[in-house]
Amino acid sequence: MTTPLRLGIAGLGTVGVGVVKIVRQKANLLAARTGRPVVITAVSARSKDKDRGVNLNDYAWEDDPVALAKRDDVDVFVELMGGHDGAAKDATEAAIAAGKDVVTANKALLALHGQELAEAAEANDRVIRFEAAVAGGIPVIKSLTEGLAGNEIQRVMGVMNGTCNYILTRMQDAGLPYEEVFAEADALGYLEADPNLDVGGIDAGHKLALLSSIAFGTKVAFDGVELEGIQRISIEDIHQAAELGFRIKLLGVAQLTGRGLEQRMSPCLVPADSPLGQLKGGTNMVVIEGDAVEQVVLRGPGAGEGPTASAVMGDICDIARGLRISTFGVPAETLEVAKSAHSISPAPYYLRMELLDRPGALAKVATALGESGISIDRMRQSQHEGSEAPVLIVTHKTQRDALDTAIDAMKATGVLAQDPVALRIESV
Amino acid sequence: MTTPLRLGIAGLGTVGVGVVKIVRQKANLLAARTGRPVVITAVSARSKDKDRGVNLNDYAWEDDPVALAKRDDVDVFVELMGGHDGAAKDATEAAIAAGKDVVTANKALLALHGQELAEAAEANDRVIRFEAAVAGGIPVIKSLTEGLAGNEIQRVMGVMNGTCNYILTRMQDAGLPYEEVFAEADALGYLEADPNLDVGGIDAGHKLALLSSIAFGTKVAFDGVELEGIQRISIEDIHQAAELGFRIKLLGVAQLTGRGLEQRMSPCLVPADSPLGQLKGGTNMVVIEGDAVEQVVLRGPGAGEGPTASAVMGDICDIARGLRISTFGVPAETLEVAKSAHSISPAPYYLRMELLDRPGALAKVATALGESGISIDRMRQSQHEGSEAPVLIVTHKTQRDALDTAIDAMKATGVLAQDPVALRIESV
Repeated sequence: MTTPLRLGIAGLGTVGVGVVKIVRQKANLLAARTGRPVVITAVSARSKDKDRGVNLNDYAWEDDPVALAKRDDVDVFVELMGGHDGAAKDATEAAIAAGKDVVTANKALLALHGQELAEAAEANDRVIRFEAAVAGGIPVIKSLTEGLAGNEIQRVMGVMNGTCNYILTRMQDAGLPYEEVFAEADALGYLEADPNLDVGGIDAGHKLALLSSIAFGTKVAFDGVELEGIQRISIEDIHQAAELGFRIKLLGVAQLTGRGLEQRMSPCLVPADSPLGQLKGGTNMVVIEGDAVEQVVLRGPGAGEGPTASAVMGDICDIARGLRISTFGVPAETLEVAKSAHSISPAPYYLRMELLDRPGALAKVATALGESGISIDRMRQSQHEGSEAPVLIVTHKTQRDALDTAIDAMKATGVLAQDPVALRIESV
Repeated sequence: MTTPLRLGIAGLGTVGVGVVKIVRQKANLLAARTGRPVVITAVSARSKDKDRGVNLNDYAWEDDPVALAKRDDVDVFVELMGGHDGAAKDATEAAIAAGKDVVTANKALLALHGQELAEAAEANDRVIRFEAAVAGGIPVIKSLTEGLAGNEIQRVMGVMNGTCNYILTRMQDAGLPYEEVFAEADALGYLEADPNLDVGGIDAGHKLALLSSIAFGTKVAFDGVELEGIQRISIEDIHQAAELGFRIKLLGVAQLTGRGLEQRMSPCLVPADSPLGQLKGGTNMVVIEGDAVEQVVLRGPGAGEGPTASAVMGDICDIARGLRISTFGVPAETLEVAKSAHSISPAPYYLRMELLDRPGALAKVATALGESGISIDRMRQSQHEGSEAPVLIVTHKTQRDALDTAIDAMKATGVLAQDPVALRIESV
């Protein structure tokens, strides 16, 4: 098999340039590993004249990614533009319609349109591969769909947004407030144009929805992900969690329960000495639990030119080698619709609140918890000078619904100075 | 593609029984994922009558694994007998000659005969898969050969013998001497029949030789692995290393340098707060460093029925899905012979020795190091009551050869009560 595999690359940002560099610099290595030359025939991006530090003269240029996607001299459409609609979606659809395989790093596109795209690709006997869309350089899609194919997956967890993990660990290490670290991250260029994609948990939620699908054989259901961002995490929470032996992480958890598929992306407390608790900076980590394998933990860089290009190249090499698999591990049309289960699995919770300094305030809070059937593991009221008393409560295991009921009841008593911070304590 | 994939399983120990259970209990899941039924047609083991807690009545029985390997109703020969020669080798050769694919968990067989077996298989257009042979349930072979195929691999490291890691972490946590923990491990059934395979580093060395081959595209060279076991690690070393901020691990390191392939399996000091340093008990960890991906760390159970069967099933599912790849990632006949480089990459070393209590003894040791061009980072002579003074030295970076020369010179001075313990400090 010495027919070259011909790539058309749409999007020449950081990742696109990284892919071009690898294809150019490692032609021999790629040919040795895949048994055939891997070449670029055409590229597309917004601006033809921009200096990207890489020689593009050998490749045809298309201003329009849809035109690129349809070219006869392209076997694989490599979509590195981003965005869940517009050009990325149009070009991907065009590529599939024209009988091309697709490699993409676009989590938003697949989280929102993955089902229809996969069905279209499979109807044409084409593949869509997206290792780079989840957890950067970590080969997690491949590990789940192929390496662990003999397992019934029980739970998938992950820290999959490097920017949020950077912010949370920087708050912890430097003792700085959220706003200050957020501004730092912004200055460093770590944030998406719409920062809510990062700190609101949306980007990580997209990734979780994709992992859920391949883990459980269910249709991607991003709208079933309970999303909670890190914007309300204060330095006080970081300190309190640390004193209790925990770290706060924006943690995604997906598990298929008897009552449906539970998908959460929210700030959680995890033990400080667990692999997740020890994860620092922009590094990502995915924890996979299967009935046979028990627990596998994968850790690596979640973003950046090299790591993301590495994941894209893994998919390209698979296609070059003839290793073809359904987008979500099983044919898209056989994926089941999972009933969405809203945080039904119980857990202990961390509750931090400011009580107005009135007689009986603490009793009212405790009563509200008790009436929702929630028992208290630990409670601490700190010394205070002003009119508001900081109170920290760790509950025994409870369901989120019961906790929300209790919080509503607390609020109704008028003793809270503001809404409490409630964080799940996840066993990992 | 609804033709069943038919397995012949040779060896019905822990792993073999685990595979039988998965195939029986997850028929639907496996068929959904691979697109075809995965079935067992025949099995073979030493004793037909032994109760293994699993129903074997549906399968043909062969006393002779070679006969099993040749059966017409077997597509994949699953070799779970173990041993680097004898029946395992004969049957694997017979399977390949008969045109079967092979899935094996046998690290010794492949470390010693992998090249000839792979060449024979590839000449017949057959595959040999061995995910279960390295690091138990961790999909590390797949990650290296496929997921990270776009990388030039720079270094592979791993803790890949759970028994040794159990012994070392138990010594650390319980403050017990090596001999006592070794006896515990023996009583728990953690040790191979020949314990030197574990504590001598041979088993882990086999695994490292396989990883080296797929990482660097070189012929498996187990005889190029510098092997050093953990038998000389004392509780004193564990304590001293901890005080310096390190943990002692039986660590495999493979790197392709300008001067050849360096493969070491030896007890090393690693930072206590690194992922490797924090690894406890029987868990395995592999660290892969590539030029694009930077660093990926994979962690999971290194042995046991479920995890090892999970790895075997991953290979079987790949074959069922038609995902076929050369044994070592590239055709075996293209693998290069790597020149073996004997610990040329420099590192700091930990040196612990007992000096006879004579005037000038310490000066003689320091002189021996200086004359080999080795400078001292830290040196500590502890208080002592007897006639021997414990001395601990941490050197600056040096090559192992220079250190060995210095140790010989020290010994020649007659001030050492016994041979020093010299452990490499690995940057991870």
